[in-house]
Amino acid sequence: MVADPVRLGTGVVAPIVPTAAAISALRPVPGGDVSITGGFWGERLRINRERTIRHGHEQLNAAGNFENFRLAAGADGEYRALGMMFTGPFPFLDSDVYKWLEAVGWELGRGQDDGLAAMADEAIGLVAAAQRPDGYLNTFVQVVAGGRPYEDLAWGHELYTLGHLVQAAVAWQRSCGDGRLLAIAERAVEHVHDHLGPRAREGLDGHPEIEMALVELFRTTGDRRHLDLAAWMVERRGRGVVGPGRFGPVYWQDHLPVREAPSVAGHAVRQLYLDCGAVDVAVETGDQGLLEAVRRRWQDMVERHSYVTGGLGSRHRDEAFGDPFELPPDRAYTETCAAIASVMLGWRLLLATGEPAAAAVVERTLYNAVLPGLALDGTSFFYVNPLQRRTQRAPGSRQEGHRQAWYACACCPPNLMRMMSSLEAYIATTDEGGVQVHQYATGEIGADTGGGRVRAIVETGYPWNGEVSVRIVESGPAAWTLSLRVPDWARQATVELPGMDRTSAEPPFAAVTRSWSPGDEVRLHLDTPARVTDPDPRIDAVRGCVAIERGPLVYCLETADLPEGTELEEITVAHDVRPADVPRADIAADAVGLELPAVRTVDGVALDVHAVPYFTWANRQAEAMRVWIPADGDTDAYPARLAYASGTSDA
Amino acid sequence: MVADPVRLGTGVVAPIVPTAAAISALRPVPGGDVSITGGFWGERLRINRERTIRHGHEQLNAAGNFENFRLAAGADGEYRALGMMFTGPFPFLDSDVYKWLEAVGWELGRGQDDGLAAMADEAIGLVAAAQRPDGYLNTFVQVVAGGRPYEDLAWGHELYTLGHLVQAAVAWQRSCGDGRLLAIAERAVEHVHDHLGPRAREGLDGHPEIEMALVELFRTTGDRRHLDLAAWMVERRGRGVVGPGRFGPVYWQDHLPVREAPSVAGHAVRQLYLDCGAVDVAVETGDQGLLEAVRRRWQDMVERHSYVTGGLGSRHRDEAFGDPFELPPDRAYTETCAAIASVMLGWRLLLATGEPAAAAVVERTLYNAVLPGLALDGTSFFYVNPLQRRTQRAPGSRQEGHRQAWYACACCPPNLMRMMSSLEAYIATTDEGGVQVHQYATGEIGADTGGGRVRAIVETGYPWNGEVSVRIVESGPAAWTLSLRVPDWARQATVELPGMDRTSAEPPFAAVTRSWSPGDEVRLHLDTPARVTDPDPRIDAVRGCVAIERGPLVYCLETADLPEGTELEEITVAHDVRPADVPRADIAADAVGLELPAVRTVDGVALDVHAVPYFTWANRQAEAMRVWIPADGDTDAYPARLAYASGTSDA
Repeated sequence: MVADPVRLGTGVVAPIVPTAAAISALRPVPGGDVSITGGFWGERLRINRERTIRHGHEQLNAAGNFENFRLAAGADGEYRALGMMFTGPFPFLDSDVYKWLEAVGWELGRGQDDGLAAMADEAIGLVAAAQRPDGYLNTFVQVVAGGRPYEDLAWGHELYTLGHLVQAAVAWQRSCGDGRLLAIAERAVEHVHDHLGPRAREGLDGHPEIEMALVELFRTTGDRRHLDLAAWMVERRGRGVVGPGRFGPVYWQDHLPVREAPSVAGHAVRQLYLDCGAVDVAVETGDQGLLEAVRRRWQDMVERHSYVTGGLGSRHRDEAFGDPFELPPDRAYTETCAAIASVMLGWRLLLATGEPAAAAVVERTLYNAVLPGLALDGTSFFYVNPLQRRTQRAPGSRQEGHRQAWYACACCPPNLMRMMSSLEAYIATTDEGGVQVHQYATGEIGADTGGGRVRAIVETGYPWNGEVSVRIVESGPAAWTLSLRVPDWARQATVELPGMDRTSAEPPFAAVTRSWSPGDEVRLHLDTPARVTDPDPRIDAVRGCVAIERGPLVYCLETADLPEGTELEEITVAHDVRPADVPRADIAADAVGLELPAVRTVDGVALDVHAVPYFTWANRQAEAMRVWIPADGDTDAYPARLAYASGTSDA
Repeated sequence: MVADPVRLGTGVVAPIVPTAAAISALRPVPGGDVSITGGFWGERLRINRERTIRHGHEQLNAAGNFENFRLAAGADGEYRALGMMFTGPFPFLDSDVYKWLEAVGWELGRGQDDGLAAMADEAIGLVAAAQRPDGYLNTFVQVVAGGRPYEDLAWGHELYTLGHLVQAAVAWQRSCGDGRLLAIAERAVEHVHDHLGPRAREGLDGHPEIEMALVELFRTTGDRRHLDLAAWMVERRGRGVVGPGRFGPVYWQDHLPVREAPSVAGHAVRQLYLDCGAVDVAVETGDQGLLEAVRRRWQDMVERHSYVTGGLGSRHRDEAFGDPFELPPDRAYTETCAAIASVMLGWRLLLATGEPAAAAVVERTLYNAVLPGLALDGTSFFYVNPLQRRTQRAPGSRQEGHRQAWYACACCPPNLMRMMSSLEAYIATTDEGGVQVHQYATGEIGADTGGGRVRAIVETGYPWNGEVSVRIVESGPAAWTLSLRVPDWARQATVELPGMDRTSAEPPFAAVTRSWSPGDEVRLHLDTPARVTDPDPRIDAVRGCVAIERGPLVYCLETADLPEGTELEEITVAHDVRPADVPRADIAADAVGLELPAVRTVDGVALDVHAVPYFTWANRQAEAMRVWIPADGDTDAYPARLAYASGTSDA
């Protein structure tokens, strides 16, 4: 397969590109200017491109998602779906195709093809053929629901699905300069303008998503009507427009107006997608009040609703946040999509406000809540990400602890694909004074600063160690500031410049301002000793336990690392346990595992147990797993700033 | 309203009456022979009769349940339902009418009317008029589902609903000698015989219930076909007959054959109703293997799935048991119906096997899992019974912590009514050698023993103190054994007979064999000091907490008893806390509350907090509540026989 050279690497790999007029403390450095070329993330991105996206194509074919577009275009056949919602097929299956297309769009923008372009060409052809002459496009409504648009806005996911089409279209336009999907999306959105909105019928989708897509469509096309419609949708929500539904109006955030609701509530992904759209609207309309409302909710979420992994959503029944500090490890819902949405929201808040804590949450979430959703080999997934899986389990516990090749409700797998394919966009920012590096990955960062074009090579052993080297390879003569994020978890951080003494660095940034010359190198050293984290005493579900962390990673115990015949539930550690690093080449070449002295409660036998990064769990013969480990001894519990921790101690 | 004297008090208040041929270690002493005349339970039964059953009649009227029978009989109108299941009305609304009728039947049998007979007459008339000429009767199928029976056995609850009709019919026949409902029920069951079963179509209801009803119908009519059909239904279950459904076959116990499944699993009420039917089939067919299978599952349930309250069912999503030791206090589902079903199953196992632990579980469950479902004033209910409710809660948390006058899915309220109305049947048993008293309530017990008719007056301060007096008022000359159950929680128990020294008594029974004369009195003294219960260390959700119990009662803390401005989540107690009895006349005349020294963690202030019986919670301005209280200090955790406790210590 020969790649089309015109389409490859011509564009901007960036899902979020605020206009020049937007409220924006920091500006994105889009992928394309950032490239991840090796190390930990280079390998994850390679697997996404070479395995996961291809696997997604196979699965979408097998599940019938592509076929449904043929039916909508007039072919004969039965609508295809792996699962049922209530009594009919899931109505949002098109969105999985769009998310997959978005991922391929970013890959092509990154200069990668490997045959993906041809697969996408066929899919785009199917999408185009399915669109009605009036612009409407939704295979479920066209094939199953009698062709009547917008009749079940509460449950039908029509605008949600359209939002994903728009995001894919924006990706192809920005990344490849390819406007085929954009033309389809604009016609479909035009159909919405004709039927819903301030000058037509009042109606909101039960699942927010279209809001952020419309803002990006405005940013791409300059058509302000899209921004206005998004702003109207954000404004009307919370006024009982969607209705009570089965789980009450809070389920879809229709309980309180978006600028009034003090806390995250209801279905986690819906809340987070809504707040992403609200930030996008706020920054483009200059609405500081709306932005502040989202920031307050985000703070509430971090302080009272976040798992130690960064995962979000505590309840299975309605996929909801639940009560503050209701954070059960075993029944954690922590949907992979919620973690992805949290990264999307954190990034938006970082751009809008410059709040360094947002980048810290993105880091925690990427490693410990997004990555666990994807098997190491890239071809199976978790929808739900519990922090504990018992040895003894209920009969028929499906989907819990076993990665699946695909899901009847397959929102998470293609969401992972598009997140990985656009990950380069979440690495660095610029402002007037220079460049900020928020996430560490081996590769190259280019940016336009006030002083002109700069380029730097980054090398790092992240997440296995905290060594980061940034070598300038291009810079104008004017001074500018290189800011390297110093995570809160780094008990000791130093910065080293050639010919200068090491100096200590404090969170949130080690900032070096100077006139840079090619060859200049900054070395950041972050200490990554294992540390023991006490839970906030208000988290009832993990009282008396500790979590083990090291650098950006949360660790867990798995049966596969225990002596034969020992059940995970029998293991306790001392509260002042001191884990020791051990190499884990079985996980990855440079992977670091931890060894912990422990006691087997049934017989009091002392033994050493091994902890592995939580994101690697369930990749072996997984039986039981736990992040929070029962601990003996006194704890220094005190209320803390973050939901999941009352304090940590170096081990 | 003049009661029909022919119907009153002529019969046998007993939902379970094994035939003479049945496997039966103990025989029931039906209500009628047992009467509760005063004390704690006398008051609860009075409230049930005077308030709850009348309230039920009003609510069934208001919700439209009665009206639906008129529609089925041909009246014009829209099918009435307060709530929706998936996309249509709940299909099981008739069953609430039948449970209410069953309760009225028992009340009339107990010699109580107060106008209930007239209400019931009207309802029976509606039921009779709705029955089709072919015997089929289900208002949902007749009015909503096109009149085609047995088309949605998995979700339609048709046989479940019919089972409740049969149980009501049996109650009216036994209790009042009134065969009107029985005639209706027999015709409806005949329709089932014609269409389902070993000689017709294979089909099982997604919700077990009809099995136990059919066995009781066999016991009442002598028609063995009903027993055979029940046996066939029990035998066919677990073989994929019902199907996978939304939650997997385990949801309705279709994952493993009934005599093979090692543990309780899936939807708790379905499992328990199924096992009630399986015991009924086993004892009547002499099937020791089937009986043993249920007994094993019951043991598993007690050891690994029971809350300290006796409540059952840990998951909201599918109302399921969950994993062993998955017993979250906040998200405890512990449906009131599951507690009632547990009493029904425990009683059956007690009769079949004589296992004293079954009576202990019935006691724990009655006081701490059934009673909490009913407000003290008898007119509002809990469907879900959490063991913790936080001060800070998710927005829009409905049904959690607030008793409701009725529910869209109103299975629990009329289930409480029939349980209270037939409670006298669960008090005592006989065997060849004498009489066993399992539950203590002030009243009278009559029984036919090997030595002839005996009668005794029971007086007790239960559950507030452990003083029980049994005074013989009638007995033949032959010696017989009076066995009084000694609960495990009684650290000291003594028995006193006139003119004899007190002797100490050990669980499970204080048994006195002698030739009794009228006037003889036995006094049982059970020590009821408050005690502190450590959770089993395998219950992750309540690690580091203690529960406070006293006699048969589990206690809890409520915001209403805390100093103004103190949040419940700030309260901790010492692990060796010593609660002191305090009178709580605000709850009931003889009620005993507990006072505990505690510490407010935010400021280290020592203060005394008051605990109340869990069954009384949410009867005041309830804010927060918790049964398991965070405790400082070492615990003596060791694996235990019961799920909820690793050990207790007297306080």
